[in-house]
Amino acid sequence: MLETGITILSWCGLAVFAATGGIVAAHKKMDIVGFAMLATVTGIGGGTIRDLLLGLTPVFWIRQPEYLLVCVAMGVVVFFSRRIRDAGFLIWFDAIGLALFCVTGAERTLSAGAGPVAAVAMGMVTATFGGIIRDVLGGESPIIFSKEIYITAALFGALAYVGLIGLSVPQDIAFVSGFVACLALRGAAIYFDWSLPQHRG
Amino acid sequence: MLETGITILSWCGLAVFAATGGIVAAHKKMDIVGFAMLATVTGIGGGTIRDLLLGLTPVFWIRQPEYLLVCVAMGVVVFFSRRIRDAGFLIWFDAIGLALFCVTGAERTLSAGAGPVAAVAMGMVTATFGGIIRDVLGGESPIIFSKEIYITAALFGALAYVGLIGLSVPQDIAFVSGFVACLALRGAAIYFDWSLPQHRG
Amino acid sequence: MLETGITILSWCGLAVFAATGGIVAAHKKMDIVGFAMLATVTGIGGGTIRDLLLGLTPVFWIRQPEYLLVCVAMGVVVFFSRRIRDAGFLIWFDAIGLALFCVTGAERTLSAGAGPVAAVAMGMVTATFGGIIRDVLGGESPIIFSKEIYITAALFGALAYVGLIGLSVPQDIAFVSGFVACLALRGAAIYFDWSLPQHRG
Repeated sequence: MLETGITILSWCGLAVFAATGGIVAAHKKMDIVGFAMLATVTGIGGGTIRDLLLGLTPVFWIRQPEYLLVCVAMGVVVFFSRRIRDAGFLIWFDAIGLALFCVTGAERTLSAGAGPVAAVAMGMVTATFGGIIRDVLGGESPIIFSKEIYITAALFGALAYVGLIGLSVPQDIAFVSGFVACLALRGAAIYFDWSLPQHRG
Repeated sequence: MLETGITILSWCGLAVFAATGGIVAAHKKMDIVGFAMLATVTGIGGGTIRDLLLGLTPVFWIRQPEYLLVCVAMGVVVFFSRRIRDAGFLIWFDAIGLALFCVTGAERTLSAGAGPVAAVAMGMVTATFGGIIRDVLGGESPIIFSKEIYITAALFGALAYVGLIGLSVPQDIAFVSGFVACLALRGAAIYFDWSLPQHRG
Repeated sequence: MLETGITILSWCGLAVFAATGGIVAAHKKMDIVGFAMLATVTGIGGGTIRDLLLGLTPVFWIRQPEYLLVCVAMGVVVFFSRRIRDAGFLIWFDAIGLALFCVTGAERTLSAGAGPVAAVAMGMVTATFGGIIRDVLGGESPIIFSKEIYITAALFGALAYVGLIGLSVPQDIAFVSGFVACLALRGAAIYFDWSLPQHRG
């Protein structure tokens, strides 16, 4: 059942990440192919970089074209639907994607035989680099700058998962805990408008 | 003979992509080493990302330094020659490179054992990511934004090639058809100033 | 003894590259997690791209988390210490890192069985791409634009090393020569404010 839940949430996360790519494409007044491309790069970007760094090639979407097709479909949907673009719930689905991918990224890295520090780093990479690539290609200020707690939440979730695995907690409990840790922090940051102190420059 | 034609066109495409890197370097008033570097990144960027994603490492230019040398030479030529920089025919050679690389990228991906969706995606990546990297490094608005039909033409050519292969059409006919499909669409877009409808933002 | 010296200088180079990431983060008023992330990407970026291109995966820092930890620590130190941020000696340490990484990048490429042209290119990539990624993510004008002799110095050092190895000079002499060549050119460029002629655009 956990397995099924993860699978469903994974597709939701992918689709929502892709949708955020479409939203940036709308800001930039791209055509429909630009929407599809930016949606795809955003949706699969983080996992692609994770696979490249670990040497897990061909990367995951080469043999599983569903990932590409879902991202392209989301780009097209966002192109035509103002309601999706304006939907306030997108930021919450994005938080779910973030929480999920920081844990699955860390998990895949541990399975590949790497140590805990690399696993935490890779959880952050998997969860955030799709968005970073989106912002660089879209000419937006990357989320790495964002005042909101975003990368920090991914760090927190990956740390929680890897830490619990290190304490020999069963994997499914560690998984749910890491997911909840990230989602709770990110959710609180959205709801209460939390941010870390910024440097004064 | 087709083989020889492809080889000649490949080098033309590479050289012209590299030249576009030099032209961006000229806009940015770089020095000669910057010209050589941006030319090289533009010329080999798309194929490099293709090889990385497929796991075909070391990437193609590591064992075939001619690619690097041609790109560096083009960077130097563009640095010194105003005539090349202003040449109106460059946009047409660029279209040839685009048409060729969307097909060769798709072909290399099918040979690596991947399916049709990944092959089409990889054709687009091979043909367009050199230019995208050039624009990101050069601080220009990436071609992904461009109003002109550019990425769409690469998509069209890759789709035609992969579709015909799927229909068991002989490979050389599929190759020429994909090439012509992309070149015709891109050429018409240049000539008639075609573009897809853009999003109103 | 040469080995020990290289190791010490390597860590200095990594730490200083990471510090430059922290300095860009300060300009952009990021929070502490942004500092750590930009420091890390800058410190390990060049070597990571080198390993990816050569197919040496998992990349070097996956199994050696010390690299990540040093970079994160530097990001935190730069966040809290104005003295480090303003330190005039940073540019000199950066030159040491540049000189070292252009040679070690070339060396690692030759060891992987590649030829001299690829080795020179990879020396430049290893030495400069961390900074290029830093500038792209940080929204700064990339060092590729810089008027100062920077990439050129990395080219010079890598050329000297690879050339001497090609002439069968013993490796440690070639190593020191390449290092000194790059450092001397970069140092002179800083001290005398040298630059190559720029294109007039």
